[in-house]
Amino acid sequence: MITSLHQQSDELIAGKTSSVELTERALALAMAADGEGPRVFTTIYADKARAAARACDTLRAAGLVRSPIDGLPVSIKDLFDVAGDTTRAGSVVLQGHPAAKESAVVVQRLTAAGAVIVGRTNMTEFAYSGLGLNPHYGTPRNPWERGVDGGRIPGGSSSGAAISVTDGMALAGVGSDTGGSLRIPAALCGITGFKPTASRVPMQGVLPLSEHLDSIGAMAPTVRCCAMMDAVLAGEAFVMPRAHPLRGLRLLMPTNVVLDGMDAEVGAALQRALSRMSAAGVVIVERRIDAFSELSAINAKGGLTAAEAWCWHRHLMSEHQTRYDARVASRILRGRDMNAADLLDVLLSRRGWIADVERQLAGHDALVMPTVPIVAPRIADLQSADERYDAANSLLLRNTTLINFLDGCAISLPCHEAGSAPVGLSLAAPGGNDHRLLSVALSVEMALA
Amino acid sequence: MITSLHQQSDELIAGKTSSVELTERALALAMAADGEGPRVFTTIYADKARAAARACDTLRAAGLVRSPIDGLPVSIKDLFDVAGDTTRAGSVVLQGHPAAKESAVVVQRLTAAGAVIVGRTNMTEFAYSGLGLNPHYGTPRNPWERGVDGGRIPGGSSSGAAISVTDGMALAGVGSDTGGSLRIPAALCGITGFKPTASRVPMQGVLPLSEHLDSIGAMAPTVRCCAMMDAVLAGEAFVMPRAHPLRGLRLLMPTNVVLDGMDAEVGAALQRALSRMSAAGVVIVERRIDAFSELSAINAKGGLTAAEAWCWHRHLMSEHQTRYDARVASRILRGRDMNAADLLDVLLSRRGWIADVERQLAGHDALVMPTVPIVAPRIADLQSADERYDAANSLLLRNTTLINFLDGCAISLPCHEAGSAPVGLSLAAPGGNDHRLLSVALSVEMALA
Repeated sequence: MITSLHQQSDELIAGKTSSVELTERALALAMAADGEGPRVFTTIYADKARAAARACDTLRAAGLVRSPIDGLPVSIKDLFDVAGDTTRAGSVVLQGHPAAKESAVVVQRLTAAGAVIVGRTNMTEFAYSGLGLNPHYGTPRNPWERGVDGGRIPGGSSSGAAISVTDGMALAGVGSDTGGSLRIPAALCGITGFKPTASRVPMQGVLPLSEHLDSIGAMAPTVRCCAMMDAVLAGEAFVMPRAHPLRGLRLLMPTNVVLDGMDAEVGAALQRALSRMSAAGVVIVERRIDAFSELSAINAKGGLTAAEAWCWHRHLMSEHQTRYDARVASRILRGRDMNAADLLDVLLSRRGWIADVERQLAGHDALVMPTVPIVAPRIADLQSADERYDAANSLLLRNTTLINFLDGCAISLPCHEAGSAPVGLSLAAPGGNDHRLLSVALSVEMALA
Repeated sequence: MITSLHQQSDELIAGKTSSVELTERALALAMAADGEGPRVFTTIYADKARAAARACDTLRAAGLVRSPIDGLPVSIKDLFDVAGDTTRAGSVVLQGHPAAKESAVVVQRLTAAGAVIVGRTNMTEFAYSGLGLNPHYGTPRNPWERGVDGGRIPGGSSSGAAISVTDGMALAGVGSDTGGSLRIPAALCGITGFKPTASRVPMQGVLPLSEHLDSIGAMAPTVRCCAMMDAVLAGEAFVMPRAHPLRGLRLLMPTNVVLDGMDAEVGAALQRALSRMSAAGVVIVERRIDAFSELSAINAKGGLTAAEAWCWHRHLMSEHQTRYDARVASRILRGRDMNAADLLDVLLSRRGWIADVERQLAGHDALVMPTVPIVAPRIADLQSADERYDAANSLLLRNTTLINFLDGCAISLPCHEAGSAPVGLSLAAPGGNDHRLLSVALSVEMALA
């Protein structure tokens, strides 16, 4: 059983534990030889974490508390700059590059909030896949069926971030989400992942994948944990979200695209979740959203991500392409073949597409859909064949990426029965509705419990 | 001597003239067989203009006045939609295309404000050149040395708009400015041209050149006229700008780029203008702005305009390229060779460039520079040789385009001595400073008089 950020915060406040104790426990799990630690972290900040924990305990003893996450161990994805370190983003290509002079704004905010940063977490190279495989630093295994046939994928790109939480190495994992990189691993690993409206959290000091789509958020055990992390990352005063009354809540479930190719486990978990919400008075409106069927054509040439990734990587790739994960390189290279008009087409289409989807959503409190339509595939199955890797990657990203294109906010909540394969239920809303979405998610979380 | 919008407005208010009288005078000049009318207008709305004028006089007699430009004859550039007409944008390619169903927002605003729309003005085909030559509808001649050797260029792309004003066919000419298309003809023809911050005036119903750079404004005899037009175009309540005190006003004159290749007439007019302003207490700060020297490299592949023009025109050009002005087509085609990363490079560079220039401008009330560094060249010289056309086009657009890239606002004021070649002085400021810039321009206009 994973303990949550807010439980630990309560225990710290009550003096039942200390930051040093929580930090030592997290570090011990992160560094255990028989654990996933070596594949979860690309760097562990043991000394800094201990110092931060001691400082927290000293301050707290004097009645000084800096934030709702003060003294709590968290992890950060390998794409956030930390002053003095080289950001590698799960790649070997940037080894030997200059160290960052300044920490990313979100790292500065975490530090100022008193968070204890345990280490940098492994990820899909340069964040460009939803599966979480990494040929350079290894692939952290999903907690579900970990021992069976080499284990299952954690989902990506924030793979290490998810496993740092499921395995108790951190109470929350800070990551990025360009097409689902927080929500997919949250769904596959049975935790909660919140992708805020992109503009709410600054990108300074974060290695980009797609400037138009990148957003920064956290995975953690519960909605409350995500809300606490979000307040710190967005630089806002934290107000504990209040559960939105379920009776009369109107959730729109699209009948096209998002349910295609759904496996039996996800189907069963979704049905149970919908029944529980209905029983609690939620109105589930099932309706086709034509725009969702149009997105793959809009992005047929690779979309914003390919264009922006190619723009960022082209000089690096001209020298080091062979050192990239070939499956990442091939997708970055799609951007090379896009011309300026292709990109403008996507940008123009996006504007109309967002307006269209927002019109469809009028009169509803949120979208509801399975975060990913299948449970976590086996690592070995995807490693062995490019076609299977590509098919699984497309399927895993398909639903979540709709919300990045919408410039919206979304949260994935676990909705499976204890002991069975993790399944995530997504709630999503147009950009700027983050606080309201968290309130809705809090009620839905209770209905699903 | 051109009469100004505000003088005519005063005379209308005082009952010394009527809208019908002003309109008949404008129409007579527009339709005079020996005038520039046939090259200035692509369409004349004689019947509609007369009806609008009569309605104005009827309303005014009952004490009803809709705006500061109520009853005054104005022209609109050939790229604004008018319900029921096909927008041709100075081209023959769109002949036979469907008529617009709705008028452009600015045309609706002009109509609601009671402006009498005399006709649609000729322009550089699709607005893509600063010279104003048009092989399809003819080139309206500059009033300066009109009879000598075939005459001089009006400047463009809002060529007909400028001559409609200099020749009394309209009291103001509404046009667009993507790289200088209002300011260049204003400068070359001896009138005033205001390019507002792009986002202040909506582009709905306007045939685009570059969505990132297009802005809508007017040319007219004076700063006050431009301010009156701007209020209507921007949908704001009109407040007559008050002259900003000249003493202590700080104007920054860049010492690089903007003075290069300046001819003797422009140099003399600029010196005289600077002396008059200094004598009135204006502090002229001369300083290098490195960013200005970097712009041609940023836009080396054609920049936003080429990319966005190609995106808009590519389907049309695939069928009709031979019917385009070859000199326009060749520049649109530069966008075909830009890839997505080239475009992203420009967008990213622009963000830093704007921040950089805005930092340089801190502590100054406006930029000051010659609008164009040379007086109007002869039409025949540019028609005959592509190299001369290209060289003149680059030189004419060079200074003004800096302000479009800045996403700023700018105004060109006449600063030559009566009877000599027209020369324009530009004042410019970062985006959003439009009202303040108009106040500064009003004082500078008085100092130059």
